[in-house]
Amino acid sequence: MGKFSFEVLKEDKNSRARTGIIKTLHGQIETPAFVPVGTQATVKSIDNRELKEIGVQLFFVNTYHLYLRPGLEMIKNFGSLHEFIGWKGPLITDSGGFQVFSLGRRNTKRRLGIIHEETEPALVKITEDGVSFRSHLDGSKHFFSPEFSIEAQSILGADLIIAFDECTYYPATKEYAKSAMERTHRWALRSLEAYKKVGRDYQALYGVIQGGVYRELREQSAKYIVSLDFPGIAIGGVSVGESKKEMQEVLDWTVPYLPDKKPRHLLGVGEIDDIFALVERGIDSFDCVMPTRLGRMGHLLCRPYKDTKNEVKYSYDVTKPAFKASKEPLEKDCGCAVCRNYSRGYLNHLFKSNELLAYKLATYHNLSFMEKLVRKIRESINQGSFHKLKSEWVL
Amino acid sequence: MGKFSFEVLKEDKNSRARTGIIKTLHGQIETPAFVPVGTQATVKSIDNRELKEIGVQLFFVNTYHLYLRPGLEMIKNFGSLHEFIGWKGPLITDSGGFQVFSLGRRNTKRRLGIIHEETEPALVKITEDGVSFRSHLDGSKHFFSPEFSIEAQSILGADLIIAFDECTYYPATKEYAKSAMERTHRWALRSLEAYKKVGRDYQALYGVIQGGVYRELREQSAKYIVSLDFPGIAIGGVSVGESKKEMQEVLDWTVPYLPDKKPRHLLGVGEIDDIFALVERGIDSFDCVMPTRLGRMGHLLCRPYKDTKNEVKYSYDVTKPAFKASKEPLEKDCGCAVCRNYSRGYLNHLFKSNELLAYKLATYHNLSFMEKLVRKIRESINQGSFHKLKSEWVL
Repeated sequence: MGKFSFEVLKEDKNSRARTGIIKTLHGQIETPAFVPVGTQATVKSIDNRELKEIGVQLFFVNTYHLYLRPGLEMIKNFGSLHEFIGWKGPLITDSGGFQVFSLGRRNTKRRLGIIHEETEPALVKITEDGVSFRSHLDGSKHFFSPEFSIEAQSILGADLIIAFDECTYYPATKEYAKSAMERTHRWALRSLEAYKKVGRDYQALYGVIQGGVYRELREQSAKYIVSLDFPGIAIGGVSVGESKKEMQEVLDWTVPYLPDKKPRHLLGVGEIDDIFALVERGIDSFDCVMPTRLGRMGHLLCRPYKDTKNEVKYSYDVTKPAFKASKEPLEKDCGCAVCRNYSRGYLNHLFKSNELLAYKLATYHNLSFMEKLVRKIRESINQGSFHKLKSEWVL
Repeated sequence: MGKFSFEVLKEDKNSRARTGIIKTLHGQIETPAFVPVGTQATVKSIDNRELKEIGVQLFFVNTYHLYLRPGLEMIKNFGSLHEFIGWKGPLITDSGGFQVFSLGRRNTKRRLGIIHEETEPALVKITEDGVSFRSHLDGSKHFFSPEFSIEAQSILGADLIIAFDECTYYPATKEYAKSAMERTHRWALRSLEAYKKVGRDYQALYGVIQGGVYRELREQSAKYIVSLDFPGIAIGGVSVGESKKEMQEVLDWTVPYLPDKKPRHLLGVGEIDDIFALVERGIDSFDCVMPTRLGRMGHLLCRPYKDTKNEVKYSYDVTKPAFKASKEPLEKDCGCAVCRNYSRGYLNHLFKSNELLAYKLATYHNLSFMEKLVRKIRESINQGSFHKLKSEWVL
């Protein structure tokens, strides 16, 4: 043991859905797995013990944020992110690329649109070597290359790490998507080389497939990334403005090219209806800020219902006056520690009073809800009833 | 059982310190007891399970705040504060008087100074009947009388409740302190009458001793309040600007007049060095926002040490750069769940990153530290070693 491995346990007969186990030095991950986001080395408002109790198997930490604060030297001083956070389970870090491109450009008026050197020279500058950018904290100048990203991720010491790529923003022209993909491929090679040199022996590097919303490019990217010896495969660029339909198309185009024996991570996707779509298209893990971010806004996850416009919803806004006097638990069938002990009315009061406890209780419930859902999904795949479960959740 | 009772267990030979047990419908309180403040029906950032684990025996909820939000009707709808919060242990509410006087005057430039009708007619108006004031939330007009305060506290349903008094602000002239004390006495009678009519059978009403920093007034007030049949005695007006020495004098003047068999609560005091002073002067319980408020500012409680100016300190500021790389627990000898799992360096990072978890972990530690200290104090009184313990803590 100690090293990374992945094993498929069961495959669904009617779709690409599958269950599996990722083994890491810090523990096992049952797949399909939901990966909450702990941007600054904390899943906002939730402590380690609660994460474990909720059933969180691993969480996502952002290299860009940790690099800026507290800085890599500080993590090195602690040994690794695990020691720094006090979290004994598996962790995943990203390459920093996505944040460099998005947060580095916070001062631009339009976040959507194509990035190129001419329009935003001061904030983000991409060259073949890497990306120079300014800190969103203090405006200081920094530079990330594929080699540096891997070195940083080696210092952070997460179990799963990700190759440095160029994210294509939506909508991107085919021309730009192609050139970003090609750069991503060159950077993938450089990331892999660096990983072989400086990666810790227990770390697994995921190569990233890009290519925008263009079938030809996605297929080309899938084939290329698969041809390299990455332990895992990630699919990027589907969380930045594309529609749910386009996300599904990207998976339909790429997953058929992926080998069965490598785990597949979808970056930045995981709304409730997305989950069924991505699982049935063969994704093993996915990270998403949705449950935690919605929770902090007072939006609590629940079983699907149709709103007054006949749209299917998976959450309700507990801060609305309708819930002020409600003695009901946050969600009837949930049974999480928050639902067992607190009412919608009390949550309404905490949010209305701007009380810190509101964010914790809401986040705890939303994460519990997600973990329970993916657990059900795994069970349904193992029992051959995934399609039935999906029909109960995707109305 | 079911009803309120108080029993002294052990008295210290060299001081007025004593241990005891307050029994309430919702559980026992070992005294001396520290009472954390949960202003808006939540001890900020800490959930019920954590409170229990920390060893919190009861907490203080502010009637004024609950009256304004979510409103008494809402609590009535839930049954009581216990059901609303989901807290099964004892609770204490105040009369609302203190907040009416202080928060109602938030728009005045000077909070210190004497209140009288001429200078602040628009915000707080005191008449013999009661106090009219404006909400700090929306400026709406409200009126609290002794009768209304008790009715409100009956609806809230806390185990320990407090008579409606007129708080004297510091510094108050003897003349003003006297007239406020006399009004407090008339209001004490009216509170007691109302309590006999509308109080729940398990609730214990504490009468409040006032009288500013004037020995004659404090003695007079103690004698008068003791002459009425309140189940408990509270001492008020020592948290609003008086020095630690004056607080001690007030206790020296008043406690000798108090009957042994009634529990004594000191309102709004509880810094670490105060605790030894108030316990040895015969106080059984005391509430204070210090541990929770300091925690949210990043000030973590610790054993006493002398700072560079040779002043004795009981906390340190974990947000200072000196702690950035520290792998030490928050406090070496603490052993609380936070100290067992997190380092000063991680707390420093969470505070610097404005992460919600910072407030929770710091508050959890500070409350644990306080509960551990009062537990030690109780043990030392029971074992006849209170003086020795004090010498270790009050340098």
